[in-house]
Amino acid sequence: MASSGAAKELQLQGLRTYEQEPRRSASLIVNSQEPFNAETPASVLSSSYLTDEDMFYKRNHGPIPILPDPSTYNLIVTGALPNPLSLSLDFLKSLPKYTVVATLQCAGNRRTEMSKVRKVRGVGWGAAAIGTAAWGGAKLSDVLKLAGVDHFSNVTAEKGRHVEFVSCDLCKEENGGAYKASIPLLHATNPEADVLLAYEMNGKVLNRDHGYPLRVVVPGVIGARSVKWIERIIISERECQGFFQQKDYKMFPPRVDWDNIDWQSRRPLMDFPVQSAICEPQDGVVVKSGDAVDLYGYAVAGGGRGIERVDISVDNGKSWMEAHRLPKLQVGSDGYEDDSQRPDWAWTLWELKNVNVETPCTVIVKAVDTAANVQPADVGDIWNLRGVLNNSWHKITLQAQHPSSMSKL
Amino acid sequence: MASSGAAKELQLQGLRTYEQEPRRSASLIVNSQEPFNAETPASVLSSSYLTDEDMFYKRNHGPIPILPDPSTYNLIVTGALPNPLSLSLDFLKSLPKYTVVATLQCAGNRRTEMSKVRKVRGVGWGAAAIGTAAWGGAKLSDVLKLAGVDHFSNVTAEKGRHVEFVSCDLCKEENGGAYKASIPLLHATNPEADVLLAYEMNGKVLNRDHGYPLRVVVPGVIGARSVKWIERIIISERECQGFFQQKDYKMFPPRVDWDNIDWQSRRPLMDFPVQSAICEPQDGVVVKSGDAVDLYGYAVAGGGRGIERVDISVDNGKSWMEAHRLPKLQVGSDGYEDDSQRPDWAWTLWELKNVNVETPCTVIVKAVDTAANVQPADVGDIWNLRGVLNNSWHKITLQAQHPSSMSKL
Repeated sequence: MASSGAAKELQLQGLRTYEQEPRRSASLIVNSQEPFNAETPASVLSSSYLTDEDMFYKRNHGPIPILPDPSTYNLIVTGALPNPLSLSLDFLKSLPKYTVVATLQCAGNRRTEMSKVRKVRGVGWGAAAIGTAAWGGAKLSDVLKLAGVDHFSNVTAEKGRHVEFVSCDLCKEENGGAYKASIPLLHATNPEADVLLAYEMNGKVLNRDHGYPLRVVVPGVIGARSVKWIERIIISERECQGFFQQKDYKMFPPRVDWDNIDWQSRRPLMDFPVQSAICEPQDGVVVKSGDAVDLYGYAVAGGGRGIERVDISVDNGKSWMEAHRLPKLQVGSDGYEDDSQRPDWAWTLWELKNVNVETPCTVIVKAVDTAANVQPADVGDIWNLRGVLNNSWHKITLQAQHPSSMSKL
Repeated sequence: MASSGAAKELQLQGLRTYEQEPRRSASLIVNSQEPFNAETPASVLSSSYLTDEDMFYKRNHGPIPILPDPSTYNLIVTGALPNPLSLSLDFLKSLPKYTVVATLQCAGNRRTEMSKVRKVRGVGWGAAAIGTAAWGGAKLSDVLKLAGVDHFSNVTAEKGRHVEFVSCDLCKEENGGAYKASIPLLHATNPEADVLLAYEMNGKVLNRDHGYPLRVVVPGVIGARSVKWIERIIISERECQGFFQQKDYKMFPPRVDWDNIDWQSRRPLMDFPVQSAICEPQDGVVVKSGDAVDLYGYAVAGGGRGIERVDISVDNGKSWMEAHRLPKLQVGSDGYEDDSQRPDWAWTLWELKNVNVETPCTVIVKAVDTAANVQPADVGDIWNLRGVLNNSWHKITLQAQHPSSMSKL
């Protein structure tokens, strides 16, 4: 179905070995070496509205692909649409450029906490499988319009209802080869949804770890749909049938386990729920009773919802204070004006300073989004076998200073 | 700023007495007589996807207005826009008609449960200040387009950013006279948001209790913004400064009470959070231990989010079963096709039949929306002085059958 132009051979190479991985910061917290999965030290997250691209969490299912010659790269847009395309990187860069500040969050963020209740499967993550960047690129809705699909289409004349993103990333064989995912056509063709084909991250060329030369960014949605190293966009009648769309990244109730799971019974996760975490101080640090501490962290909601309030307790939930929500970064972006009416795709950083604590104590954060959704108190209530979307109240403990533990200082 | 056509005198009359109230069903549960506030018996809600208009909850702040002569009615569209309008009912009916199945919910739904934790101010409501209807009318976005404001506008050339709906409803003097509310311009001009100027409810002419001749329906948003008996639409630079937008229907944390409230510190509520309730059996009914019961209820989320799952426990939360979500009503509406990609504005009714119970017991329902938001377990965590948006786990008790309580049967 692709036009003759689409026949050009792709030059983006998925690799089968880990011998050509990019250099990475030694400060990352590595949760798995091959494939490389690493998160940011939490204190780095709360120290800057935009997360440095080298420190941004890295979530992979295979080796990082390589593009030996950028001039040979073409993005194929094909499937159930009127006008299949093959687009060079230069052409994509010639389209109107949008810069969208958006938080990406792995559905597995805070999985390790969930595993403490009952073991779940998947890479362990602390509370930093999340980050915010200014993504620059073309709007997917504009590219689909060039391919003959109007804005706000929910179906094409050729019966296409889903937009599949296919990477050249080579996942493990049992996971079906190339990483792929899909979103509904209406989401993809809605210019207000700000889905990008991004070639820039924080004003720099997207690096290999984050999808060079081109990646999808689906704001407000779990990171798994923001496919990196994208090679092909396919408009399909059905949603993506790949492993990560159909047999992973779905939410099950606590009573479902590996012996009674029915993957077909649930929809693929999209929007993530309201979430927050304490980034500083670190869990378990020693604080002298009566001392004051400064608390820092993030709060975020999916689907374009903003954060209405952030509540903090330093007495394990007996009383609550409101954190100060820091001003959000406004990026004066091409074609975009600052506007509080538009969807909110990025986190709110918060702080609460000079809080007197009686140690030992448990510090809790919970947030409320603009739709008045709240986080659940108890991780057990949302336990699920894949350990996804843990947005229960985030807790850290501050230890008391005992003579015998002075060495911890 | 209104055109000369707008000078025509309005004939919709706000009344100062309760002598001309409409006749109402004796089956309604009346929470306040003047103004008339009443809810549906819960078992009626779960027995029909669309709520009968006579049984639909009624939430008022004053006497029901009257329109002696429909031919004299005009809707005024004015303020910061290029082309002020005065529109007759016949003209509004000549515009493309949309039928939107939408659930309206009072922000005070389930307030009475919240008051049991600590007294809140406001009319007491059980779990039935909610209902679903097929609303028929013109799209607000189409009317605003006629007034010179394009679809998807967030600001007009005249600096309008908010759309205020002014009723002729005469509220108590201390509440500032005519009931009014506003929504952001982008919401109003977004045709996908399905905001209606409705003249029909369930295929019939809107009745007086529900806003005859014309009301606003803002799907996915607390009922307070769906202004009845609308007389005037004003595009403004600021959001509505009326009592019910600025000094009511806002969400405060539990530590804020009437002696330390700062109304300016919070935004007016819009989207409501994920919610569910058990409609049948009734709280407190007697069931013989070991007997089977059939459970029925509703689940709904604001902002166009659907319901992903409904969980039921009959042992006070120790174990959970999944309720069966009933098919949603599809209204083959003018200009609309059924489409799961579109926002979901209406509730999901659910049932769980033949459940063996050991009485006495507590039955709980909680729902998960399509953004994986969940309801909070504890109403105390979301307590607020106005008792709004109580979406904590809904509980009923089933009493045991004791010889001494046989008379309860």
